[in-house]
Amino acid sequence: MLRTCVAYRNGQKLAEISVEEIHHYLEQPDCFVWVALVDPGPQELAVMRAQFHLHPLAVEDAQKGHQRPKIEEYGGGLFAVVHMIEEKDGELIVGEADIFVGRNYVLSVRNRAERGFQEVRARSEREPELLRYGPGYVLYALIDAVVDRYFPILDRLEDELETLEERIFAGMSLRDNIEALYALKQRLMLIKHAVTPLLEAIGNLSGARVPLMCTGMQEYFRDIADHLQRLNQSIESARDTLISATTVNVSMISLQEGEVMKRLAAYAALVAVPTLIAGIYGMNFELMPELKWKYGYFLAIGLMVGLDGLLFWKLRKEKWL
Amino acid sequence: MLRTCVAYRNGQKLAEISVEEIHHYLEQPDCFVWVALVDPGPQELAVMRAQFHLHPLAVEDAQKGHQRPKIEEYGGGLFAVVHMIEEKDGELIVGEADIFVGRNYVLSVRNRAERGFQEVRARSEREPELLRYGPGYVLYALIDAVVDRYFPILDRLEDELETLEERIFAGMSLRDNIEALYALKQRLMLIKHAVTPLLEAIGNLSGARVPLMCTGMQEYFRDIADHLQRLNQSIESARDTLISATTVNVSMISLQEGEVMKRLAAYAALVAVPTLIAGIYGMNFELMPELKWKYGYFLAIGLMVGLDGLLFWKLRKEKWL
Amino acid sequence: MLRTCVAYRNGQKLAEISVEEIHHYLEQPDCFVWVALVDPGPQELAVMRAQFHLHPLAVEDAQKGHQRPKIEEYGGGLFAVVHMIEEKDGELIVGEADIFVGRNYVLSVRNRAERGFQEVRARSEREPELLRYGPGYVLYALIDAVVDRYFPILDRLEDELETLEERIFAGMSLRDNIEALYALKQRLMLIKHAVTPLLEAIGNLSGARVPLMCTGMQEYFRDIADHLQRLNQSIESARDTLISATTVNVSMISLQEGEVMKRLAAYAALVAVPTLIAGIYGMNFELMPELKWKYGYFLAIGLMVGLDGLLFWKLRKEKWL
Amino acid sequence: MLRTCVAYRNGQKLAEISVEEIHHYLEQPDCFVWVALVDPGPQELAVMRAQFHLHPLAVEDAQKGHQRPKIEEYGGGLFAVVHMIEEKDGELIVGEADIFVGRNYVLSVRNRAERGFQEVRARSEREPELLRYGPGYVLYALIDAVVDRYFPILDRLEDELETLEERIFAGMSLRDNIEALYALKQRLMLIKHAVTPLLEAIGNLSGARVPLMCTGMQEYFRDIADHLQRLNQSIESARDTLISATTVNVSMISLQEGEVMKRLAAYAALVAVPTLIAGIYGMNFELMPELKWKYGYFLAIGLMVGLDGLLFWKLRKEKWL
Amino acid sequence: MLRTCVAYRNGQKLAEISVEEIHHYLEQPDCFVWVALVDPGPQELAVMRAQFHLHPLAVEDAQKGHQRPKIEEYGGGLFAVVHMIEEKDGELIVGEADIFVGRNYVLSVRNRAERGFQEVRARSEREPELLRYGPGYVLYALIDAVVDRYFPILDRLEDELETLEERIFAGMSLRDNIEALYALKQRLMLIKHAVTPLLEAIGNLSGARVPLMCTGMQEYFRDIADHLQRLNQSIESARDTLISATTVNVSMISLQEGEVMKRLAAYAALVAVPTLIAGIYGMNFELMPELKWKYGYFLAIGLMVGLDGLLFWKLRKEKWL
Ligand SMILES: [Mg+2]
Ligand SMILES: [Mg+2]
Ligand SMILES: [Mg+2]
Ligand SMILES: [Mg+2]
Ligand SMILES: [Mg+2]
Ligand SMILES: [Mg+2]
Ligand SMILES: [Mg+2]
Ligand SMILES: [Mg+2]
Ligand SMILES: [Mg+2]
Ligand SMILES: [Mg+2]
Ligand SMILES: [Mg+2]
Ligand SMILES: [Mg+2]
Ligand SMILES: [Mg+2]
Ligand SMILES: [Mg+2]
Ligand SMILES: [Mg+2]
Ligand SMILES: [Mg+2]
Ligand SMILES: [Mg+2]
Ligand SMILES: [Mg+2]
Ligand SMILES: [Mg+2]
Ligand SMILES: [Mg+2]
Ligand SMILES: [Mg+2]
Ligand SMILES: [Mg+2]
Ligand SMILES: [Mg+2]
Ligand SMILES: [Mg+2]
Ligand SMILES: [Mg+2]
Ligand SMILES: [Mg+2]
Ligand SMILES: [Mg+2]
Ligand SMILES: [Mg+2]
Ligand SMILES: [Mg+2]
Ligand SMILES: [Mg+2]
Ligand SMILES: [Mg+2]
Repeated sequence: MLRTCVAYRNGQKLAEISVEEIHHYLEQPDCFVWVALVDPGPQELAVMRAQFHLHPLAVEDAQKGHQRPKIEEYGGGLFAVVHMIEEKDGELIVGEADIFVGRNYVLSVRNRAERGFQEVRARSEREPELLRYGPGYVLYALIDAVVDRYFPILDRLEDELETLEERIFAGMSLRDNIEALYALKQRLMLIKHAVTPLLEAIGNLSGARVPLMCTGMQEYFRDIADHLQRLNQSIESARDTLISATTVNVSMISLQEGEVMKRLAAYAALVAVPTLIAGIYGMNFELMPELKWKYGYFLAIGLMVGLDGLLFWKLRKEKWL
Repeated sequence: MLRTCVAYRNGQKLAEISVEEIHHYLEQPDCFVWVALVDPGPQELAVMRAQFHLHPLAVEDAQKGHQRPKIEEYGGGLFAVVHMIEEKDGELIVGEADIFVGRNYVLSVRNRAERGFQEVRARSEREPELLRYGPGYVLYALIDAVVDRYFPILDRLEDELETLEERIFAGMSLRDNIEALYALKQRLMLIKHAVTPLLEAIGNLSGARVPLMCTGMQEYFRDIADHLQRLNQSIESARDTLISATTVNVSMISLQEGEVMKRLAAYAALVAVPTLIAGIYGMNFELMPELKWKYGYFLAIGLMVGLDGLLFWKLRKEKWL
Repeated sequence: MLRTCVAYRNGQKLAEISVEEIHHYLEQPDCFVWVALVDPGPQELAVMRAQFHLHPLAVEDAQKGHQRPKIEEYGGGLFAVVHMIEEKDGELIVGEADIFVGRNYVLSVRNRAERGFQEVRARSEREPELLRYGPGYVLYALIDAVVDRYFPILDRLEDELETLEERIFAGMSLRDNIEALYALKQRLMLIKHAVTPLLEAIGNLSGARVPLMCTGMQEYFRDIADHLQRLNQSIESARDTLISATTVNVSMISLQEGEVMKRLAAYAALVAVPTLIAGIYGMNFELMPELKWKYGYFLAIGLMVGLDGLLFWKLRKEKWL
Repeated sequence: MLRTCVAYRNGQKLAEISVEEIHHYLEQPDCFVWVALVDPGPQELAVMRAQFHLHPLAVEDAQKGHQRPKIEEYGGGLFAVVHMIEEKDGELIVGEADIFVGRNYVLSVRNRAERGFQEVRARSEREPELLRYGPGYVLYALIDAVVDRYFPILDRLEDELETLEERIFAGMSLRDNIEALYALKQRLMLIKHAVTPLLEAIGNLSGARVPLMCTGMQEYFRDIADHLQRLNQSIESARDTLISATTVNVSMISLQEGEVMKRLAAYAALVAVPTLIAGIYGMNFELMPELKWKYGYFLAIGLMVGLDGLLFWKLRKEKWL
Repeated sequence: MLRTCVAYRNGQKLAEISVEEIHHYLEQPDCFVWVALVDPGPQELAVMRAQFHLHPLAVEDAQKGHQRPKIEEYGGGLFAVVHMIEEKDGELIVGEADIFVGRNYVLSVRNRAERGFQEVRARSEREPELLRYGPGYVLYALIDAVVDRYFPILDRLEDELETLEERIFAGMSLRDNIEALYALKQRLMLIKHAVTPLLEAIGNLSGARVPLMCTGMQEYFRDIADHLQRLNQSIESARDTLISATTVNVSMISLQEGEVMKRLAAYAALVAVPTLIAGIYGMNFELMPELKWKYGYFLAIGLMVGLDGLLFWKLRKEKWL
């Protein structure tokens, strides 16, 4: 679905144009066209391929989707893939933005993601001194927006992890924690798979030799790389913490288990001792003086209770009960 | 066994030719020969070696088989080894394609694999504008086909892994899972050993300096490298998940075990308490008033049942039963 | 908040100046201005941005804070971020120093850190032969001071770790140790995240090609790098030790647990044996000679005590009790 | 001990010569001498050092032995160390071949290894078109022979590993497996320490710039590197599998243990229930109707047997017995 | 403390000189001075700094001590730090040699180490053809001596490790082994921290471009690097083995524990069965024929003993006892 199609000159919006008018604006100097598609069908992509002379392998990637983040050069053009991660009902949805960039055009293809790039366009149009850089700047602005959206998602995962840590050291719901930690790691890895390859790819846009349309933008792309490195480090930290937390959680379960077994064994002792006494006074010897005592029975019961009291106190002191 | 032997000129099929005619076509300009062998014997390879002046070390590799994936230059020619992985009765069979490429010939040797390259040849012949690139394009098309076949196999392993994950968190058949996870990892490693060395090797065909017959094909080989990187990342993810899943599975077994021990200990308590009461009323004291009561016996039984009921309720509440 | 603003010429302090006078001194040859801000607001930073023509992306980083340690070139200037770690009530507080360096100015922005750089300025003013190097030397002196402050903090963590190790091998408070080891690792990682990226960044100031204002200072920056490598190695060692210690601690808990279970089982035996004897003499056979003996009862009790004594001695010998 | 000393010209054997004649042949053009020593004493090495002007550091290495695999350049000569691994009574013996190579000589020193290089010499003499390459070819042939001998040894270790895997999943001799896996890893590491450094070293003989006497042999040395990489990957796989197998084996032991404990607890229940019933009918209440029944006793015994039968059936169903 | 101060010319000892004479000899061509200090105070270092014009940062390192191994260039001079490891009462003491090397001087500063470099000087003076190389050779000889002393220390650690391995598989003193393995790893890491950074540093003295005074010595420094690599590999092997051994040791403890629990449970069964029989014959049924039998009591005791004998045999067979 075509979302927007606008022509710009010298950082200023010229006009919203139709797809058919694109080639007309491409021929004008200092002019570039910025087209936004959302979940397009093969037909729409074929039209764009023809308008912008896109490379078939790049179009194939955009068509198929589910690419890893990357930035590739095709002749004079760039093809960038970035992952758009959104939260929905507590699950992470991984969408994709496929961005084709040429000397005088930008085509962004958004797949499986709800939140679009309207605000990026709006902010760009408010800053004509930057938009004058042309398609290279638009590429920067789009990737920057995508990367900025990773931060709150990662923050939420880190918060969840902290909650889990507190539960672990409080010994709470240890069994459920295992599954929660496992699921958390899976979600963390989704972000990692969005961040790490992009960090690698963006290095080629912030170094000494960059593609023509990114000239002069190096410091901006380096800023994205810096954001990605911060994300990357936070992810690595979280992952490391997750592993430790899982180990501790399993240890805590085994400790709780041991605790229960110890208490059960202690209770068993509390029953075994009076059983022994009862056994003794159940013996059939002819001469057992206590049996004849008036309060023998009550003394025996008292002995049982007394010994158990003593034992109970002892076990409490040893923390076995 | 010779499968096919065809001569091409300018991307167009000239004729199916016999082995003896090969040298004739090799002498013509703009012409190349594409030969396909299947599980050949030493004799057939010797004939090809003579026809195409293949390097003895490369022929030796093709003869012996069981090579690691690689792409080697021998003089002006290339020798590529790729693993062909096929599923058969739930097991993975690792076959091998050994591809010799020269300025004007392609020789593909397929070993221990059922599915051939007929469709690759058919598609290539339908796209003469690409086949015009010559042997370099055929090499691309063959490797691309082999790599594309890894995806559904990996998908199936990932599905199996997900099924195992569900079984683990449902606490089902935990003992069998250990062996299943172990076997899954072995199969995953088979794919990894096909993918990782090939990724390394293909880099030399997509960079700045490539062998002559691959000139102009860099973007195509980079596309294969991109596929291999996606595979590689999925394999790494799956491996990571496998390790976590194994750890969790073992923890789950130990939890179930603990559960059983706790229940057994709880049942023991349910027997021990009435045993104590029976012991008490089995004592031989002369003066034990309850023994004389009319309903003493029934009260004792009632006491046993009552205490056990109370205990049962208590144990249930503590989740020990 | 503006802390200090001083102009220097040839390593000698000229005068404390006001913000408005800065541009005046920037125009003079051999002169540089060193400004120190503490937790500044956006307004103060905007003034500095105008005075020194700072790059907006660098100012944005200083404004937002929570950057990773780095040293970036912006045109002819440098922008450095270093973490300032301080201990407060047993917790580590991570502050930040953002340092802008140009041909003739240094602007240090200190955030969330109590201890400032007054001593650095004082020492620099006492060594005019070094301060003559200009802004590059000030950058060195600031980073050197920050790095030197990491050592005592790391020392304290290592001491804590040693205390924990002793407790582990003495079998003391093993459960609390788990949480203590976990928290220790978190704090260790805070230092690691201050050290490792800075080590990487500082390499660019000690190599063959360095920014203009750091020329001739390479050996000084290499000295910082050397300190950072020592810190890094100590951190890695401590981390390694932490992992081993955690493993050993968990093993020790499980050993203690096993110890308790063994003792409980041994005590159970001490009760079970006399219970069996009591059971035997509670049988109702008509002919049981011992029952008629005058001291049968006492002999039975003696037998119980004797067997238990023997058993106790045996269990002690086997170290099960 | 001198094994053989032969002079060659243009790939053809000239004559077996004595040590004293060596310098005579070294002076002739197109001629080279190939000397083989076995476990030589210092005296023999000193003679060779003088004949071939060997570097003292290289001779020292050959004298001391127990070097890591390496290939070093000394002036115009090469000094190679490779490990010769042999199996003897189920143990791996690590011998060493130290090879000195110059423009017109090869000196191989074999230490602590039974199997020599006679077959290498014989095959080389049968292929004069290759032997014409001179000392560089002999170096290739010797290393190639050593590396080819690693394969069957590694195969045997992999077979042992598979046998152990089968035993693990069959739950057989789990305790012995721990030690077997441990010993297997040690032997695997012996091969790894022979392979990995050699792979690194051989890279310098198969690249663009190689020592003079190896010119034109690059494809041959690359073939050795390829063998070493295959070995390396198999070793890494085996190591990975060993780690997994050890983990699983330990889990299996703990599972078997748990199994035994469960069965013991189940048996305990089978004894405890009739003990309770016996206790009940051992109570001394005056009014216990069952005691007076004619078949009361037999009914009680029947009740015990019946309850135990029921319990047994229940425990079997739950797989606790 | 000044140990020795000698001037050399062309590899020949000229004279033992006083500190005051140093500058005199430094001015003579082909002459160099070799000074050895032991645990010097700041004053002594200040004198040397003045005599040799040492860089203040290098002197500061030598003063402070506790540096990591490194080799740094300062102007035309070199500053090397190597760790001297000595065994004392079973503990490893890490001393330090700080070596300043210039065109015509060597200053070695030995700290916290008992064994000096007298033998190095003696051997050097006996080999004037090598000592003629000058300060570069002395640097080699000193580092070579330090590195050679690591071998016997590492050997001893490896022996200890083997002893521990034997104890583990014999099931001996498993609890003490944990602490012993832990301490062994700490000592191993001390050596690793001496070896790994030095290996990195020495690479710069054995490559293509080396500092002036090391020209022609590359093969000698490469020999040290080779020793360090052997040490490094042995350390890595030992570390790997240590980790495996620790894991196995913990498993062995848990196995022994399980063994004890199984035996205790088996003993419990041996008591429970006769207790049940006694309970049965303690029931008060009026009609229990056995009670009236003349040898009923003895038959009951016989039944108990018989059943326990059977049970004992059964448990032995199952290896539970
Ligand atoms: Mg980072
Ligand atoms: Mg990173
Ligand atoms: Mg990171
Ligand atoms: Mg990590
Ligand atoms: Mg981290
Ligand atoms: Mg980290
Ligand atoms: Mg990847
Ligand atoms: Mg990988
Ligand atoms: Mg990867
Ligand atoms: Mg990856
Ligand atoms: Mg992954
Ligand atoms: Mg990953
Ligand atoms: Mg790994
Ligand atoms: Mg270091
Ligand atoms: Mg590190
Ligand atoms: Mg380090
Ligand atoms: Mg380190
Ligand atoms: Mg360390
Ligand atoms: Mg490999
Ligand atoms: Mg490897
Ligand atoms: Mg592998
Ligand atoms: Mg490998
Ligand atoms: Mg592998
Ligand atoms: Mg280390
Ligand atoms: Mg090594
Ligand atoms: Mg290493
Ligand atoms: Mg190794
Ligand atoms: Mg190593
Ligand atoms: Mg390692
Ligand atoms: Mg090793
Ligand atoms: Mg490893």
